[in-house]
Amino acid sequence: MTRYERLAQGMAAEIRSGNLKPGARMPSLRQIIAQHGVSQSTAARAYYLLEQWGLVLAEERSGYFVAPPAKPGHGAAKRAASAGEAGEMDETDETATVDISELVFSVLDAAKRPGIVPLGSAFPSPLLFPMARLAKSLGLAARSVSPWSTVVDLPPGNENLRRQIALRYMRVGISQPAEDIVVTNGALEALNLCLMAVTQPGDVVAVESPGFYVALQAIERLGLRAVEIPVDGATGLDLEALAHALERHPIRACWFMTNFQNPTGVTLSAAKKQALVELLAQHQVPLIEDDVYGELHYAPHYPPPALAFDRHGLVMHCGSFSKTLAPGYRVGWASAGRFAARVQRLKLMTTLSASIPVQAGIADYLEHGGYERHLKKIRLSMQSQRDAMIDAIARWLPEGTRHTNPEGGYFLWLSFPARIDAMALHRLAIERGISVAPGPLFSATHGFENCIRLNYGHPWSPRIDEAIRTLGELLVHPEVRARDA
Amino acid sequence: MTRYERLAQGMAAEIRSGNLKPGARMPSLRQIIAQHGVSQSTAARAYYLLEQWGLVLAEERSGYFVAPPAKPGHGAAKRAASAGEAGEMDETDETATVDISELVFSVLDAAKRPGIVPLGSAFPSPLLFPMARLAKSLGLAARSVSPWSTVVDLPPGNENLRRQIALRYMRVGISQPAEDIVVTNGALEALNLCLMAVTQPGDVVAVESPGFYVALQAIERLGLRAVEIPVDGATGLDLEALAHALERHPIRACWFMTNFQNPTGVTLSAAKKQALVELLAQHQVPLIEDDVYGELHYAPHYPPPALAFDRHGLVMHCGSFSKTLAPGYRVGWASAGRFAARVQRLKLMTTLSASIPVQAGIADYLEHGGYERHLKKIRLSMQSQRDAMIDAIARWLPEGTRHTNPEGGYFLWLSFPARIDAMALHRLAIERGISVAPGPLFSATHGFENCIRLNYGHPWSPRIDEAIRTLGELLVHPEVRARDA
Repeated sequence: MTRYERLAQGMAAEIRSGNLKPGARMPSLRQIIAQHGVSQSTAARAYYLLEQWGLVLAEERSGYFVAPPAKPGHGAAKRAASAGEAGEMDETDETATVDISELVFSVLDAAKRPGIVPLGSAFPSPLLFPMARLAKSLGLAARSVSPWSTVVDLPPGNENLRRQIALRYMRVGISQPAEDIVVTNGALEALNLCLMAVTQPGDVVAVESPGFYVALQAIERLGLRAVEIPVDGATGLDLEALAHALERHPIRACWFMTNFQNPTGVTLSAAKKQALVELLAQHQVPLIEDDVYGELHYAPHYPPPALAFDRHGLVMHCGSFSKTLAPGYRVGWASAGRFAARVQRLKLMTTLSASIPVQAGIADYLEHGGYERHLKKIRLSMQSQRDAMIDAIARWLPEGTRHTNPEGGYFLWLSFPARIDAMALHRLAIERGISVAPGPLFSATHGFENCIRLNYGHPWSPRIDEAIRTLGELLVHPEVRARDA
Repeated sequence: MTRYERLAQGMAAEIRSGNLKPGARMPSLRQIIAQHGVSQSTAARAYYLLEQWGLVLAEERSGYFVAPPAKPGHGAAKRAASAGEAGEMDETDETATVDISELVFSVLDAAKRPGIVPLGSAFPSPLLFPMARLAKSLGLAARSVSPWSTVVDLPPGNENLRRQIALRYMRVGISQPAEDIVVTNGALEALNLCLMAVTQPGDVVAVESPGFYVALQAIERLGLRAVEIPVDGATGLDLEALAHALERHPIRACWFMTNFQNPTGVTLSAAKKQALVELLAQHQVPLIEDDVYGELHYAPHYPPPALAFDRHGLVMHCGSFSKTLAPGYRVGWASAGRFAARVQRLKLMTTLSASIPVQAGIADYLEHGGYERHLKKIRLSMQSQRDAMIDAIARWLPEGTRHTNPEGGYFLWLSFPARIDAMALHRLAIERGISVAPGPLFSATHGFENCIRLNYGHPWSPRIDEAIRTLGELLVHPEVRARDA
C-alpha cells in the first residue's frame, strides 16, 4: 500500500468509526502535512481517494467535509448532497456515486429460477422470434463466408450487415454512412463503449430517473457520477430539469432512452427530441441514445430517434437486434457520430470484434428472411399482451394503482396508492414463483420504493393472470405494507 | 469544463509551450491557491490531472515537478523516472503510464491493406482451420438450441461448452469446475475482465517486456501503470526481476503469457511456472495468465500452464478457440479462481453474454468435430512453417541476426546485429507490400527498436520467402540504419 492509501485508509477508519461526524470539517491539507509528516502531494491524493470513496465532500474555497452517511437499509448508496450556498456551481452537488450492482444481481439471480413467472425479466419471450429461420441464415452464412472475413470483418464489422443497418436508418430519413456504424456484442456493449469514449473516471453523467439499471451499473463500474433527471410516465424526460442540471453540473454525457423507455415505456415526442438535441448542442454534451425498443412500435411508424435531429455529430445512437429479432445472438451497433473512430478503437481493444459468422447470419436474414413481416407480427403480439396486462391490473390490483400506457416495447411501470415496500414485494413474490422488478433498481439513490416494472413480453396466459392476482394479494401483506407502521 | 480542469489545462499549456521546463519545480498548492483564487481541493485536483496526463511528477516531501518530455520520435511515451532517493519506495519509480494505442493502430491499419504479406499480423492463416466443419456444427447447434437458452446461457455461459472446456483442463490434470469457467467474446475480453476484476485506476500491473501490446492497451485504457519485467528469448520471464519488482512496487496484478509467449514464442519451464506461482502467492498478487497459444505445442504434450500449480485461486487462466480452432467466432473463456464471480458479473455488466448459438456450435464441434485430429494437423503445419522461416532468415537476413526457437505458436522474435530502426523498417516494408511488427509495439516505453516479430502462421510460399529477402535488403537501407549516422 502506498503512503497516500495508508493515510486515506486511516482517515476512512476515523470517519466510519464515527470519530469524525457527517458534516464535520476535515483537517486542511496543511494540517495533514504537519500532523503526518507527509508531502502535499500525498495529502492531496489521500483526499482524492476519500472523495472517490464518497467519504468526504470538497467544498469550493472552504476545504473538505465528512460526507453524509450512506442511506440506511440500502448498504452503499452514497449521495453527495451539497452543504454549500444554494445556486453556487459545485460538481459534487446532487451527483451520486452509484452502487446498484449488488441489488441488481440479487434480483436477477432470484428471477433466473426455472419455472418462475418472469414479470421482472428484462427479456421478452424467445418464443416470439423466428429462431428456426434465423438458424437457417446463420448456417448458410457460416458456410459461405470467406475465411478471410476473420480479418476483413474486424471493427467496424461485416460490411453487408452495416449496409443493412444503414438502410434501416434511411427508411426514416436518417442518412448514416455505413462506415460510421460499429457492430458490437449487443447494444449493452455499444452503450458501454460510447460511455467510455466520452468520459473519464470522476466525470458526471446524466441519466433518467427512473432509468435502466445497466446505465447505473456502467456508471458505477467506470467510477463516474450520476445526475438523475426525472422521467414523467406520460411525457418522458423533464427537459427543464435537464437544462437546470446542465447549468449546475459539469455534465460530460447523457445516457437516455428516447423510445419506449425502460422502465416506463414512455416515448419523447419529436418536438421534445428536437429540443433535447438542441439543448445538448448548446452545451456541447454528447447524448448516448439507447434505442433498443424503437422498432417495437404499435403505431404504424418508427418514431425517429433524437439522432434524426442531430446536426453536430453529438448523438451516439445505439441499437440492437436482441429485442426485435435475435435474442442471444448478441448483435448490436453504435452510430457514434463524431466519436465513431474512438468507439471503434475501444471495441478493438476490449473484445476485438463481434462474432463474424453471426454478423453475416443476421445480415443474410435482414436481406432474405422477412424482417418486416416478423416485426409486424411481434408488434401485434406485444400490443395485445399490453392490453391483457392492463386489463389484469384493473381486475386484480388495488384501486388507484397507476400505470403507464406504452405505445411500444413491453414494459409497464406501476405505482401504488398506498405506500408499499417494493423490495419486500419482490421477495415475497419470488417465494410464490413470480418475479417483479422493484422500483429501487431503477435509481442510483434507490428511490421508487412504491413502484414496480412489469414485463408483458410473454404470450398472455392464465398463469400470468394468476400471477397478477397473487401480486394483488401480496400488496396488502403486512411485510409489504410495513412502512406504514 | 470544471474549474480544476481549466486550471490544469492552463498549466498544461505552460508546460507544453516550454515556459515551464522539464525538471522545473511547479508552484506549490499554496501558491496556486493564492495566484488563481481557487480552493485547495481545486488546486489538488488540478495537480492530480496533470499527474494523470504525465506532465508533472510528484516528489514525496518536496512538491511537483515538470516531467521529462515524451521520448522524441514516439509521441507520447511518458516514463516517470524517479529523482528521489535510491531505494526509497516510490510508486512512480520505474512504473510507466502507457500510451501505445496510437502506435499499435497505425501499424495495424497499415497491415490491413489487401494483398499484403502479413508477417506483422497477430493472426494465423484462416485457411488452416476447419471452417466448413465448424459451420456445420454452428448450423446444427443454432437449429437445435432451446429458445430458452437465450436466458439460461447467460454468464457463466453454455453448460455443454463449459463442460467441454473443463474436460480439456482435466486431460492435463487440472480439475477446474465448469461453474468457475466464464465464457467470453474471445480471450481478449477474458483478459480485460480479469484485469478489471483485480485493479483500480492508478494501480500498478506487471507485464512482460517484450510483451503483447493488448496488455499495454488495456493498462492504458483502464488508467493503470505498467512495470515491465524482462523476458529472455530462451528462458522466458526473469523471475528475479519480478521478485525485485514485487518488493519495490505495489503491484496489484501480473499479466503474463506462460506458453509460447507473444512476441518471443518462449515458454516457461514447469519449474519456473511453479516458482512464479509460489512467488506471487507469497505476495498475494493475482496472475492473469494468457494461454491462447498453449494448444499449439509441437512436442507431444500441452505444457501445463501456471494454473496447474495454483493452490490459492490466484491464477486467472484465459484461453480461446480463436488461435486453435475458430478464428472470428470470438469464443474464449476465463477460469478466474477466487475472482470467478467478479469476472462473471463484469461480463454481465459490459457485454451480457457471448453469442448463444456460437457457444453451442463450438461445443458441438468439440464433442463431434474431431478437434484432436485438427490440432495435430495444425501443429505440424506451424512447425514446418517455423522451420521454413528460420531457413529463410539464415539465407536472407544479415549474419548475426538472432531469433528465438519457439516450440509452439507461430511467432519468431528477431534482433539484428547492426543497430536498426524497426519503425523505419516497418514503414518501408509496408511500401513494398510486407507487414512486420516492429519491436517498439511490445513495450510501454517503446524500446526494442532493434527487434521485430515475424508471424509464420501462414502456409509457406515463395511469396513469403521473397518477402524475407526484401526485408534483408531493407535492413541495409539508409533510413533503417539511420541511427548509426
